[in-house]
Amino acid sequence: MSAVTPGPALPPLRALRMQLHAAHQPIVVMRSDCHVCRSEGLSPRSQVLLVSGERQVQALLYQTDDERFPLDQVALSEAAWTALGLAEGDPVQVRHPPVLESLASVRRRVYGRRLDAPEIDAIVRDVVQGRYTDVHLAAFLTATAALPMDAAETVHLTRAMVEVGHRLSWPSPSVVDKHCVGGLPGNRTSPIVVAIAAANGLVMPKTSSRAITSPAGTADTMETLAPVDLDLPTLRRVVEREGGCLAWGGAMHLSPADDIFVRIERELDIDTEGQLIASVLSKKIAAGATHVAIDIPVGPTAKIRSPEAARHLAARMEATGAHFGLLVRCMFTDGAQPVGHGIGPALEAHDVLAVLRCEAGAPVDLRERAADIAGVVLELGGVAAEGTGTRLALDTLDSGRAWDRFVRICEAQGGMRTPPVAPCVAPLVATHGGRAVHIDNRRLSRLAKLAGAPESAAAGVRLLVRLGDEVARGQPLLELHAQTAAELAYALEYAKDAGDIVQIVA
Amino acid sequence: MSAVTPGPALPPLRALRMQLHAAHQPIVVMRSDCHVCRSEGLSPRSQVLLVSGERQVQALLYQTDDERFPLDQVALSEAAWTALGLAEGDPVQVRHPPVLESLASVRRRVYGRRLDAPEIDAIVRDVVQGRYTDVHLAAFLTATAALPMDAAETVHLTRAMVEVGHRLSWPSPSVVDKHCVGGLPGNRTSPIVVAIAAANGLVMPKTSSRAITSPAGTADTMETLAPVDLDLPTLRRVVEREGGCLAWGGAMHLSPADDIFVRIERELDIDTEGQLIASVLSKKIAAGATHVAIDIPVGPTAKIRSPEAARHLAARMEATGAHFGLLVRCMFTDGAQPVGHGIGPALEAHDVLAVLRCEAGAPVDLRERAADIAGVVLELGGVAAEGTGTRLALDTLDSGRAWDRFVRICEAQGGMRTPPVAPCVAPLVATHGGRAVHIDNRRLSRLAKLAGAPESAAAGVRLLVRLGDEVARGQPLLELHAQTAAELAYALEYAKDAGDIVQIVA
Repeated sequence: MSAVTPGPALPPLRALRMQLHAAHQPIVVMRSDCHVCRSEGLSPRSQVLLVSGERQVQALLYQTDDERFPLDQVALSEAAWTALGLAEGDPVQVRHPPVLESLASVRRRVYGRRLDAPEIDAIVRDVVQGRYTDVHLAAFLTATAALPMDAAETVHLTRAMVEVGHRLSWPSPSVVDKHCVGGLPGNRTSPIVVAIAAANGLVMPKTSSRAITSPAGTADTMETLAPVDLDLPTLRRVVEREGGCLAWGGAMHLSPADDIFVRIERELDIDTEGQLIASVLSKKIAAGATHVAIDIPVGPTAKIRSPEAARHLAARMEATGAHFGLLVRCMFTDGAQPVGHGIGPALEAHDVLAVLRCEAGAPVDLRERAADIAGVVLELGGVAAEGTGTRLALDTLDSGRAWDRFVRICEAQGGMRTPPVAPCVAPLVATHGGRAVHIDNRRLSRLAKLAGAPESAAAGVRLLVRLGDEVARGQPLLELHAQTAAELAYALEYAKDAGDIVQIVA
Repeated sequence: MSAVTPGPALPPLRALRMQLHAAHQPIVVMRSDCHVCRSEGLSPRSQVLLVSGERQVQALLYQTDDERFPLDQVALSEAAWTALGLAEGDPVQVRHPPVLESLASVRRRVYGRRLDAPEIDAIVRDVVQGRYTDVHLAAFLTATAALPMDAAETVHLTRAMVEVGHRLSWPSPSVVDKHCVGGLPGNRTSPIVVAIAAANGLVMPKTSSRAITSPAGTADTMETLAPVDLDLPTLRRVVEREGGCLAWGGAMHLSPADDIFVRIERELDIDTEGQLIASVLSKKIAAGATHVAIDIPVGPTAKIRSPEAARHLAARMEATGAHFGLLVRCMFTDGAQPVGHGIGPALEAHDVLAVLRCEAGAPVDLRERAADIAGVVLELGGVAAEGTGTRLALDTLDSGRAWDRFVRICEAQGGMRTPPVAPCVAPLVATHGGRAVHIDNRRLSRLAKLAGAPESAAAGVRLLVRLGDEVARGQPLLELHAQTAAELAYALEYAKDAGDIVQIVA
């Protein structure tokens, strides 16, 4: 074996497509006793570098002893296959990956040393190149949760995340956007705000994320109403024609690093202030926004629990935005209870449609909240004088101009869809009569997720009471919606011993 | 799909053995469109619960669209296969895993809240049951690195780690043990100390770990001299017959949680004080030790860099041990440079043999250090008066009684072996003449690892100079040993731009 020359000169292995889905993770499977594993001294569950022509990707290696697996082949997961742009049987070189130098910075950060711009740039570049394992990513994100990023680190991370992605530019001098910090189930104002802004002649190329730790992100909800997986030319065409769009940001690769961090944050069910700000602002900056309204719901069980925390986040957001010429205006809204009735992609979409169509049963809180945010957007965009934005927003809804514009945007994105309805529904009833005095947003979100949201678009929770409502014993407080009986049973099991999600006091 | 009843009643899938090696990770592969994935709403790269009869294990799910993969089968990695004790074609149930409640404690710990005993018990139980993903494990370990465990948490973790593993007991009233905190390449005293202690009639059932972040653990080194993967009956027989053994602790499942934590610590290249103490003491307590000598090398590039840190660790070790009736005595040793010549399993084994055989070229520093530690062990064990232990230890070596006992222990463990010699060797020479004033232990370890240690037993570094030596330009400072040319080239590439590992001053 000592005669074998280093990796690059080894006869290459042949690519075999496993059609293996691993949530974007590049994976390779090789025979433990193939000449590459032996000569390179590769061990299972280690990182390897795959090279094919000009392209390369780092992948997780598993090894097999199965004799039926050809010695001269290397099997690739879909993520690895597409990253290398392979055809069946193509030659693939497998080597030790280069030493991951930026990991030393992550280790220092774990032990409390602040990171400078070059260190954060190197980390984010390595992350986007797929060189970080789940363990590395979790360590980095946990370190920035244990010791929150300071102002400088947050700016560095935001810049680094913008620089590794695509960046849009628009002819219009002012480009508006909005974002909700989340943590409030059912708070699905974006489709309404975009429709109102676009109907009033503003340019609002809205890109949204899928759920991180919530039962639905705006992209998940919008996907039940129209295609959101738009490429750049399509998005540009939609915005040029209709003034606004509601697209999934991930498809745009505006912040590819964020797409990777988000998966880990979801698995840990944590997101940190620094990551939150960099995640939000990097996408707004990359999308070419000049003015952004940020909705920060505040409440005991919302993501932001106190006015102090809200003010701190707002100050940090506005200061970070200023570094990039982005005017950020934050607004604090009531986070005491969910907005609208639905919690889950399709259930929230039904609420959005009701508001846009000004239907009788439309949730008033969603209508008013959307109008307030749209008001700020209209004022930031310069089409409404200070203090008159909300009025103009409501007029735009009532006149049907918002609905009309929303339909045109959906059509431009590829055709309007009807949100699905869940086949399996079960109510949770009040065990005693009284008044609804507290609603636990976190448990409600947890319940909707256990029911299958957001993976199952129709799944989630339909809340049937509001704070202050009088309810009778046996009256349904909420409905569980699930795609399958198994998921329904799973969610019911949790609800059973989850205590009072809606607290009733006699 | 709404007609499908919950998981348990679904027709089971048939087990298919992939012979897939994934470093102890249970993995399953299923068709995306099989009835279980569809009805349970399973998504790729998520955790699933596998059930076969009375046994169950949690596994990582990947999905495939490959038509050649049978719809009614579930392919399992070796870890999942053995955990369930399956035969080809056995029925396997696949379900959503139960909610991982203990993760809430990990999240609170990330945000700085201390953990109590029940919380740590629950975490360790879930970890041992394989319910924690790499992301969860990394978050827990990172949190305890960012905010080090306090005394109470360290005791809780130690107890929890003992309780999930096996526990040995011995007829003898006093059972001695030793441990080196590590961080010092080549510091392979254990085989020598055990031989000396056993030769003097003490009971020393030594279990050692494999390398965590170092190029070799004692178990890696011993494995080149004799089998170390002993089951409990064998270990018991060896100790009853010879008074001592040198076994791999992992095979004993004395601390199964530690075996899992260690893999993540290795990938992150961090280990924390709390984890370190719990890792060391849980194994000593489980092994039935009553007295333990702990060697703490202190030096600028050792794991423990300052006398303050060493004293803090010693105090914490002794206090934690006292909670379990374990008498711990720590000794601080010189960590300024490696011990012996070899760094890597086989290279260190050759040094051990030289000392035990009292060969002319035997490394004096390893002999003296081993004698000092053995001295403390002999005193703790009551066979030497205070201050006379080292003398007795040296006599035991010089009389050949230690060597004789070592050979008998190796034979009892399954037969003495000759350590391998690497086929690929290359020197690193001095670029200028002068005196060796500094040796970077961390870079030296890194270099030995890049050369293939500990996976390749013969790989590593052979140090040819000591601090204070005068060297001429072009004189070899160290030798790189590798199993393959590729690994040798890889290590040389790092050494090229790794700066002065051995610092020479004219």
